[in-house]
Amino acid sequence: MARAKSSGNGGERRDSRGILFDATAALLSERSTIEVSLSEIAQRSGLNSALIKYYFGSKEGLLLALLERVAERSMADLAALVGMDISAEQKLRIHIGGIINTYYRSPYVNRLINYMIVQGDKASSEKVAKIFVEPMIAAYRAIVAQGVGDGAFRPLDPGMLYYSVVGACEHIFYAGYSLPTTLGMTELTEQVRQQYVQHVLDLVFHGVLARPTATA
Amino acid sequence: MARAKSSGNGGERRDSRGILFDATAALLSERSTIEVSLSEIAQRSGLNSALIKYYFGSKEGLLLALLERVAERSMADLAALVGMDISAEQKLRIHIGGIINTYYRSPYVNRLINYMIVQGDKASSEKVAKIFVEPMIAAYRAIVAQGVGDGAFRPLDPGMLYYSVVGACEHIFYAGYSLPTTLGMTELTEQVRQQYVQHVLDLVFHGVLARPTATA
Repeated sequence: MARAKSSGNGGERRDSRGILFDATAALLSERSTIEVSLSEIAQRSGLNSALIKYYFGSKEGLLLALLERVAERSMADLAALVGMDISAEQKLRIHIGGIINTYYRSPYVNRLINYMIVQGDKASSEKVAKIFVEPMIAAYRAIVAQGVGDGAFRPLDPGMLYYSVVGACEHIFYAGYSLPTTLGMTELTEQVRQQYVQHVLDLVFHGVLARPTATA
Repeated sequence: MARAKSSGNGGERRDSRGILFDATAALLSERSTIEVSLSEIAQRSGLNSALIKYYFGSKEGLLLALLERVAERSMADLAALVGMDISAEQKLRIHIGGIINTYYRSPYVNRLINYMIVQGDKASSEKVAKIFVEPMIAAYRAIVAQGVGDGAFRPLDPGMLYYSVVGACEHIFYAGYSLPTTLGMTELTEQVRQQYVQHVLDLVFHGVLARPTATA
Protein backbone atom coordinates (compact mmCIF):
# COMPACT_ATOMS: atom_id res chain seq x y z
CA MET A 1 0.00 0.00 0.00
CA ALA A 2 1.35 3.38 -1.01
CA ARG A 3 2.05 5.63 1.93
CA ALA A 4 2.20 9.39 2.08
CA LYS A 5 5.70 10.79 1.82
CA SER A 6 7.03 11.99 5.14
CA SER A 7 7.85 15.69 5.10
CA GLY A 8 10.20 15.88 8.00
CA ASN A 9 7.63 15.27 10.71
CA GLY A 10 8.89 11.88 11.83
CA GLY A 11 7.49 12.08 15.35
CA GLU A 12 3.97 12.67 14.19
CA ARG A 13 3.96 9.76 11.76
CA ARG A 14 3.67 7.36 14.62
CA ASP A 15 0.12 8.40 15.56
CA SER A 16 -2.96 7.71 13.47
CA ARG A 17 -3.96 11.34 13.10
CA GLY A 18 -0.60 12.12 11.52
CA ILE A 19 -0.89 9.15 9.16
CA LEU A 20 -4.38 10.27 8.11
CA PHE A 21 -3.15 13.84 7.53
CA ASP A 22 -0.26 12.62 5.38
CA ALA A 23 -2.48 10.29 3.34
CA THR A 24 -5.03 13.06 2.73
CA ALA A 25 -2.36 15.60 1.79
CA ALA A 26 -0.78 13.10 -0.61
CA LEU A 27 -4.14 12.33 -2.28
CA LEU A 28 -5.03 16.02 -2.58
CA SER A 29 -1.59 16.83 -4.01
CA GLU A 30 -2.08 14.23 -6.74
CA ARG A 31 -5.32 15.67 -8.09
CA SER A 32 -6.54 19.04 -9.22
CA THR A 33 -9.73 19.12 -7.14
CA ILE A 34 -10.55 18.58 -3.47
CA GLU A 35 -12.69 15.58 -4.38
CA VAL A 36 -11.37 12.83 -2.14
CA SER A 37 -13.47 10.16 -0.44
CA LEU A 38 -13.25 8.68 3.03
CA SER A 39 -12.63 5.24 1.54
CA GLU A 40 -9.73 6.53 -0.58
CA ILE A 41 -8.17 8.10 2.50
CA ALA A 42 -8.70 4.88 4.44
CA GLN A 43 -7.12 2.83 1.66
CA ARG A 44 -4.12 5.13 1.23
CA SER A 45 -3.46 5.38 4.96
CA GLY A 46 -4.00 1.70 5.64
CA LEU A 47 -6.34 2.74 8.46
CA ASN A 48 -10.04 2.08 8.97
CA SER A 49 -12.44 4.82 7.85
CA ALA A 50 -14.23 4.44 11.20
CA LEU A 51 -11.07 5.89 12.72
CA ILE A 52 -11.50 9.04 10.59
CA LYS A 53 -15.00 9.49 11.97
CA TYR A 54 -13.74 8.81 15.48
CA TYR A 55 -11.02 11.44 15.26
CA PHE A 56 -12.58 14.09 13.02
CA GLY A 57 -16.34 13.44 12.91
CA SER A 58 -16.45 13.57 9.09
CA LYS A 59 -14.40 14.15 5.97
CA GLU A 60 -15.05 17.90 6.35
CA GLY A 61 -13.68 17.69 9.88
CA LEU A 62 -10.54 15.95 8.63
CA LEU A 63 -10.00 18.54 5.87
CA LEU A 64 -10.44 21.42 8.29
CA ALA A 65 -8.04 19.80 10.78
CA LEU A 66 -5.48 19.32 7.97
CA LEU A 67 -5.80 23.00 7.11
CA GLU A 68 -5.31 23.90 10.78
CA ARG A 69 -2.12 21.88 10.90
CA VAL A 70 -0.77 23.61 7.78
CA ALA A 71 -1.79 27.01 9.21
CA GLU A 72 -0.10 26.38 12.56
CA ARG A 73 3.23 25.67 10.92
CA SER A 74 3.08 28.51 8.36
CA MET A 75 1.91 31.03 10.93
CA ALA A 76 4.65 30.04 13.39
CA ASP A 77 7.19 30.67 10.60
CA LEU A 78 5.57 34.04 9.86
CA ALA A 79 5.66 35.10 13.53
CA ALA A 80 9.34 34.15 13.68
CA LEU A 81 10.01 36.23 10.54
CA VAL A 82 8.29 39.28 12.04
CA GLY A 83 10.43 38.94 15.18
CA MET A 84 13.73 38.86 13.26
CA ASP A 85 16.22 41.70 13.44
CA ILE A 86 16.05 42.64 9.73
CA SER A 87 14.45 45.47 7.74
CA ALA A 88 10.73 45.62 6.98
CA GLU A 89 11.53 45.38 3.26
CA GLN A 90 13.49 42.18 3.89
CA LYS A 91 10.59 40.74 5.90
CA LEU A 92 8.04 41.53 3.19
CA ARG A 93 10.33 40.05 0.53
CA ILE A 94 10.79 36.80 2.47
CA HIS A 95 7.06 36.64 3.21
CA ILE A 96 6.12 37.03 -0.49
CA GLY A 97 8.55 34.29 -1.49
CA GLY A 98 7.13 32.15 1.32
CA ILE A 99 3.49 32.44 0.22
CA ILE A 100 4.30 31.61 -3.40
CA ASN A 101 6.52 28.68 -2.40
CA THR A 102 3.91 27.27 -0.02
CA TYR A 103 1.24 27.32 -2.71
CA TYR A 104 3.68 25.90 -5.26
CA ARG A 105 4.62 22.98 -3.01
CA SER A 106 1.10 22.35 -1.68
CA PRO A 107 -1.46 23.66 -4.17
CA TYR A 108 -4.15 21.75 -2.34
CA VAL A 109 -3.90 24.25 0.54
CA ASN A 110 -5.26 27.00 -1.67
CA ARG A 111 -8.02 24.77 -3.05
CA LEU A 112 -8.92 23.62 0.44
CA ILE A 113 -9.26 27.20 1.70
CA ASN A 114 -11.41 28.03 -1.35
CA TYR A 115 -13.53 24.95 -0.75
CA MET A 116 -14.13 25.85 2.90
CA ILE A 117 -15.27 29.32 1.83
CA VAL A 118 -17.32 28.44 -1.26
CA GLN A 119 -19.09 25.73 0.74
CA GLY A 120 -20.70 28.68 2.45
CA ASP A 121 -20.59 27.15 5.92
CA LYS A 122 -20.26 30.13 8.28
CA ALA A 123 -18.37 28.11 10.91
CA SER A 124 -15.75 26.96 8.36
CA SER A 125 -15.27 30.49 6.99
CA GLU A 126 -14.81 31.84 10.49
CA LYS A 127 -12.37 29.08 11.31
CA VAL A 128 -10.33 29.90 8.19
CA ALA A 129 -10.35 33.58 9.19
CA LYS A 130 -9.19 32.67 12.69
CA ILE A 131 -6.34 30.34 11.72
CA PHE A 132 -5.04 32.17 8.64
CA VAL A 133 -6.22 35.75 8.53
CA GLU A 134 -5.73 36.83 12.16
CA PRO A 135 -2.03 35.89 12.34
CA MET A 136 -1.44 37.24 8.81
CA ILE A 137 -2.98 40.62 9.54
CA ALA A 138 -1.02 40.88 12.81
CA ALA A 139 2.17 40.30 10.80
CA TYR A 140 1.20 42.91 8.16
CA ARG A 141 0.49 45.47 10.89
CA ALA A 142 3.89 44.87 12.47
CA ILE A 143 5.81 44.96 9.17
CA VAL A 144 4.02 48.09 7.90
CA ALA A 145 4.55 49.85 11.26
CA GLN A 146 8.26 49.04 11.10
CA GLY A 147 8.64 50.07 7.45
CA VAL A 148 6.66 53.30 7.73
CA GLY A 149 8.39 54.09 11.04
CA ASP A 150 11.80 53.66 9.37
CA GLY A 151 10.77 55.84 6.46
CA ALA A 152 11.33 52.88 4.10
CA PHE A 153 7.63 52.46 3.17
CA ARG A 154 5.14 55.13 2.26
CA PRO A 155 2.04 55.19 4.49
CA LEU A 156 0.02 52.02 3.80
CA ASP A 157 -3.14 50.41 5.15
CA PRO A 158 -2.00 46.98 6.43
CA GLY A 159 -5.38 45.37 5.68
CA MET A 160 -5.40 46.60 2.08
CA LEU A 161 -1.76 45.62 1.64
CA TYR A 162 -2.68 42.16 2.91
CA TYR A 163 -5.45 41.68 0.32
CA SER A 164 -3.44 43.03 -2.58
CA VAL A 165 -0.23 41.12 -1.82
CA VAL A 166 -1.88 37.80 -0.97
CA GLY A 167 -4.16 38.15 -4.02
CA ALA A 168 -1.18 38.87 -6.29
CA CYS A 169 0.67 35.83 -4.89
CA GLU A 170 -2.12 33.29 -5.02
CA HIS A 171 -4.20 33.96 -8.13
CA ILE A 172 -1.75 32.13 -10.38
CA PHE A 173 -2.31 28.97 -8.33
CA TYR A 174 -5.99 29.41 -7.84
CA ALA A 175 -6.61 30.09 -11.51
CA GLY A 176 -4.42 27.21 -12.68
CA TYR A 177 -7.02 26.25 -15.27
CA SER A 178 -5.96 29.35 -17.20
CA LEU A 179 -2.24 28.57 -17.51
CA PRO A 180 -2.39 27.30 -21.11
CA THR A 181 -4.00 30.60 -22.15
CA THR A 182 -1.83 32.96 -20.10
CA LEU A 183 1.63 31.43 -20.02
CA GLY A 184 1.34 28.71 -22.67
CA MET A 185 1.93 25.84 -20.24
CA THR A 186 -0.23 23.25 -18.50
CA GLU A 187 1.63 23.24 -15.21
CA LEU A 188 3.80 25.67 -13.28
CA THR A 189 7.47 24.73 -13.41
CA GLU A 190 10.13 25.52 -10.82
CA GLN A 191 11.59 28.08 -13.25
CA VAL A 192 8.26 29.87 -13.70
CA ARG A 193 7.72 29.80 -9.93
CA GLN A 194 11.02 31.65 -9.47
CA GLN A 195 10.14 34.13 -12.22
CA TYR A 196 6.78 34.73 -10.63
CA VAL A 197 8.34 35.43 -7.20
CA GLN A 198 10.59 37.99 -8.91
CA HIS A 199 7.65 39.48 -10.81
CA VAL A 200 5.59 39.99 -7.63
CA LEU A 201 8.60 41.39 -5.73
CA ASP A 202 9.27 43.88 -8.55
CA LEU A 203 5.61 44.86 -8.67
CA VAL A 204 5.17 45.25 -4.92
CA PHE A 205 8.40 47.18 -4.41
CA HIS A 206 8.59 49.22 -7.58
CA GLY A 207 5.38 49.01 -9.61
CA VAL A 208 5.22 48.76 -13.39
CA LEU A 209 6.63 52.11 -14.42
CA ALA A 210 10.02 52.38 -16.08
CA ARG A 211 12.46 54.07 -13.73
CA PRO A 212 15.29 56.31 -14.88
CA THR A 213 17.41 55.09 -11.93
CA ALA A 214 17.03 51.33 -11.75
CA THR A 215 17.60 49.95 -8.26
CA ALA A 216 15.99 46.53 -8.63
CA MET B 1 -43.87 39.12 -6.85
CA ALA B 2 -40.51 40.84 -6.54
CA ARG B 3 -38.76 41.28 -9.85
CA ALA B 4 -35.08 41.66 -10.57
CA LYS B 5 -33.98 45.26 -10.96
CA SER B 6 -33.38 46.20 -14.57
CA SER B 7 -29.83 47.30 -15.18
CA GLY B 8 -30.29 49.22 -18.37
CA ASN B 9 -31.03 46.24 -20.57
CA GLY B 10 -34.63 47.07 -21.29
CA GLY B 11 -34.80 45.23 -24.58
CA GLU B 12 -33.73 41.95 -23.11
CA ARG B 13 -36.28 42.05 -20.29
CA ARG B 14 -39.00 41.12 -22.70
CA ASP B 15 -37.74 37.59 -23.30
CA SER B 16 -37.83 34.79 -20.74
CA ARG B 17 -34.08 34.16 -20.82
CA GLY B 18 -33.44 37.77 -19.79
CA ILE B 19 -36.03 37.55 -17.01
CA LEU B 20 -34.43 34.35 -15.70
CA PHE B 21 -30.95 35.95 -15.80
CA ASP B 22 -32.17 39.00 -13.89
CA ALA B 23 -33.96 36.90 -11.26
CA THR B 24 -30.89 34.70 -10.74
CA ALA B 25 -28.53 37.69 -10.54
CA ALA B 26 -30.84 39.38 -8.02
CA LEU B 27 -31.03 36.25 -5.84
CA LEU B 28 -27.27 35.72 -5.98
CA SER B 29 -26.63 39.37 -5.13
CA GLU B 30 -28.78 39.06 -2.01
CA ARG B 31 -26.85 36.19 -0.47
CA SER B 32 -23.24 35.44 0.29
CA THR B 33 -23.10 32.00 -1.35
CA ILE B 34 -24.04 30.60 -4.76
CA GLU B 35 -26.66 28.38 -3.15
CA VAL B 36 -29.80 29.13 -5.12
CA SER B 37 -32.43 26.59 -6.12
CA LEU B 38 -34.40 26.19 -9.33
CA SER B 39 -37.64 26.73 -7.45
CA GLU B 40 -36.37 30.00 -5.92
CA ILE B 41 -35.41 31.23 -9.39
CA ALA B 42 -38.80 30.15 -10.74
CA GLN B 43 -40.62 31.93 -7.93
CA ARG B 44 -38.59 35.15 -8.23
CA SER B 45 -38.91 35.31 -12.01
CA GLY B 46 -42.57 34.35 -12.07
CA LEU B 47 -41.70 31.73 -14.68
CA ASN B 48 -42.04 27.97 -14.60
CA SER B 49 -38.94 25.97 -13.59
CA ALA B 50 -39.55 23.70 -16.59
CA LEU B 51 -38.67 26.72 -18.71
CA ILE B 52 -35.23 26.88 -17.04
CA LYS B 53 -34.60 23.28 -18.00
CA TYR B 54 -35.87 23.98 -21.49
CA TYR B 55 -33.52 26.91 -22.03
CA PHE B 56 -30.47 25.91 -20.02
CA GLY B 57 -30.70 22.17 -19.32
CA SER B 58 -30.05 22.59 -15.60
CA LYS B 59 -29.26 25.11 -12.87
CA GLU B 60 -25.54 24.74 -13.71
CA GLY B 61 -26.35 25.57 -17.31
CA LEU B 62 -28.24 28.68 -16.25
CA LEU B 63 -25.38 29.84 -13.99
CA LEU B 64 -22.81 29.31 -16.74
CA ALA B 65 -25.00 31.18 -19.25
CA LEU B 66 -25.37 34.06 -16.75
CA LEU B 67 -21.58 34.18 -16.40
CA GLU B 68 -21.24 34.21 -20.19
CA ARG B 69 -23.57 37.18 -20.43
CA VAL B 70 -21.59 39.09 -17.80
CA ALA B 71 -18.32 38.17 -19.55
CA GLU B 72 -19.58 39.31 -22.96
CA ARG B 73 -20.40 42.77 -21.66
CA SER B 74 -17.25 43.23 -19.57
CA MET B 75 -14.99 41.93 -22.30
CA ALA B 76 -16.58 44.19 -24.92
CA ASP B 77 -15.85 47.15 -22.60
CA LEU B 78 -12.26 45.95 -22.17
CA ALA B 79 -11.72 45.61 -25.92
CA ALA B 80 -13.07 49.13 -26.41
CA LEU B 81 -10.69 50.43 -23.72
CA VAL B 82 -7.69 48.78 -25.40
CA GLY B 83 -8.65 50.41 -28.70
CA MET B 84 -8.84 53.93 -27.24
CA ASP B 85 -6.32 56.63 -28.16
CA ILE B 86 -4.91 57.05 -24.63
CA SER B 87 -1.68 56.02 -22.89
CA ALA B 88 -1.02 52.48 -21.67
CA GLU B 89 -0.87 53.78 -18.09
CA GLN B 90 -4.31 55.33 -18.51
CA LYS B 91 -5.68 52.06 -19.91
CA LEU B 92 -4.27 50.00 -17.04
CA ARG B 93 -5.63 52.51 -14.51
CA ILE B 94 -9.14 52.41 -15.99
CA HIS B 95 -9.00 48.61 -16.23
CA ILE B 96 -8.03 48.25 -12.54
CA GLY B 97 -10.86 50.55 -11.45
CA GLY B 98 -13.19 48.57 -13.72
CA ILE B 99 -12.36 45.16 -12.22
CA ILE B 100 -12.80 46.40 -8.66
CA ASN B 101 -16.04 48.19 -9.50
CA THR B 102 -17.48 45.15 -11.28
CA TYR B 103 -16.79 42.92 -8.29
CA TYR B 104 -18.11 45.56 -5.92
CA ARG B 105 -21.38 45.90 -7.82
CA SER B 106 -21.80 42.19 -8.58
CA PRO B 107 -19.90 40.14 -5.99
CA TYR B 108 -21.75 37.05 -7.16
CA VAL B 109 -19.69 37.10 -10.38
CA ASN B 110 -16.54 36.32 -8.44
CA ARG B 111 -18.27 33.60 -6.41
CA LEU B 112 -19.76 32.12 -9.55
CA ILE B 113 -16.36 31.90 -11.24
CA ASN B 114 -14.91 30.30 -8.10
CA TYR B 115 -17.81 27.87 -7.96
CA MET B 116 -17.33 26.82 -11.59
CA ILE B 117 -13.65 26.16 -10.89
CA VAL B 118 -13.91 24.50 -7.46
CA GLN B 119 -16.63 22.21 -8.81
CA GLY B 120 -13.77 20.65 -10.71
CA ASP B 121 -15.75 20.11 -13.90
CA LYS B 122 -13.17 20.38 -16.70
CA ALA B 123 -15.70 21.68 -19.22
CA SER B 124 -16.79 24.53 -16.90
CA SER B 125 -13.18 25.51 -16.12
CA GLU B 126 -12.35 25.56 -19.81
CA LYS B 127 -15.43 27.63 -20.54
CA VAL B 128 -14.43 30.16 -17.87
CA ALA B 129 -10.93 30.31 -19.36
CA LYS B 130 -12.41 30.88 -22.81
CA ILE B 131 -14.89 33.62 -21.89
CA PHE B 132 -12.82 35.51 -19.30
CA VAL B 133 -9.14 34.67 -19.57
CA GLU B 134 -8.62 34.73 -23.34
CA PRO B 135 -9.95 38.27 -23.87
CA MET B 136 -8.23 39.47 -20.68
CA ILE B 137 -4.84 38.15 -21.68
CA ALA B 138 -5.21 39.63 -25.17
CA ALA B 139 -5.86 43.01 -23.53
CA TYR B 140 -2.84 42.67 -21.20
CA ARG B 141 -0.59 41.80 -24.15
CA ALA B 142 -1.77 44.87 -26.07
CA ILE B 143 -1.46 47.25 -23.08
CA VAL B 144 1.99 45.94 -22.07
CA ALA B 145 3.23 46.13 -25.69
CA GLN B 146 2.05 49.75 -25.90
CA GLY B 147 3.51 50.73 -22.51
CA VAL B 148 6.86 49.04 -22.99
CA GLY B 149 7.04 50.35 -26.58
CA ASP B 150 6.46 53.89 -25.32
CA GLY B 151 9.09 53.50 -22.63
CA ALA B 152 6.43 54.12 -19.97
CA PHE B 153 6.52 50.58 -18.53
CA ARG B 154 9.54 48.47 -17.68
CA PRO B 155 9.65 45.11 -19.49
CA LEU B 156 6.84 42.94 -18.10
CA ASP B 157 5.41 39.49 -18.78
CA PRO B 158 1.74 40.14 -19.68
CA GLY B 159 0.62 36.76 -18.28
CA MET B 160 2.31 37.37 -14.94
CA LEU B 161 1.01 40.93 -14.82
CA TYR B 162 -2.47 39.54 -15.45
CA TYR B 163 -2.31 37.14 -12.48
CA SER B 164 -0.82 39.66 -10.09
CA VAL B 165 -3.14 42.55 -10.98
CA VAL B 166 -6.35 40.50 -11.12
CA GLY B 167 -5.37 38.72 -7.87
CA ALA B 168 -4.67 42.05 -6.15
CA CYS B 169 -8.06 43.41 -7.33
CA GLU B 170 -10.24 40.45 -6.48
CA HIS B 171 -8.95 38.92 -3.25
CA ILE B 172 -10.71 41.51 -1.09
CA PHE B 173 -14.04 40.37 -2.57
CA TYR B 174 -13.29 36.72 -2.62
CA ALA B 175 -12.08 36.70 0.96
CA GLY B 176 -14.97 38.78 2.24
CA TYR B 177 -15.33 36.50 5.27
CA SER B 178 -12.12 38.08 6.56
CA LEU B 179 -13.24 41.74 6.49
CA PRO B 180 -14.00 42.00 10.24
CA THR B 181 -10.44 40.83 10.97
CA THR B 182 -8.62 42.89 8.35
CA LEU B 183 -10.51 46.14 8.04
CA GLY B 184 -12.81 46.01 11.07
CA MET B 185 -16.03 45.98 9.02
CA THR B 186 -18.57 43.37 7.98
CA GLU B 187 -19.22 44.73 4.51
CA LEU B 188 -17.30 46.83 1.97
CA THR B 189 -18.61 50.37 1.76
CA GLU B 190 -18.45 52.70 -1.22
CA GLN B 191 -15.76 54.71 0.58
CA VAL B 192 -13.60 51.64 1.18
CA ARG B 193 -14.10 50.57 -2.43
CA GLN B 194 -12.70 53.92 -3.57
CA GLN B 195 -9.79 53.65 -1.12
CA TYR B 196 -9.05 50.15 -2.34
CA VAL B 197 -8.97 51.27 -6.00
CA GLN B 198 -6.46 53.96 -4.98
CA HIS B 199 -4.43 51.45 -2.95
CA VAL B 200 -4.13 49.02 -5.88
CA LEU B 201 -3.32 51.84 -8.33
CA ASP B 202 -0.56 53.13 -6.02
CA LEU B 203 0.81 49.62 -5.56
CA VAL B 204 0.75 48.68 -9.25
CA PHE B 205 2.25 51.96 -10.42
CA HIS B 206 4.65 52.80 -7.64
CA GLY B 207 5.05 49.90 -5.19
CA VAL B 208 5.32 50.25 -1.44
CA LEU B 209 8.61 52.10 -1.09
CA ALA B 210 8.73 55.69 0.07
CA ARG B 211 9.84 57.91 -2.78
CA PRO B 212 11.85 61.09 -2.40
CA THR B 213 10.02 62.57 -5.42
CA ALA B 214 6.32 61.80 -5.06
CA THR B 215 4.47 61.70 -8.38
CA ALA B 216 1.28 59.88 -7.32
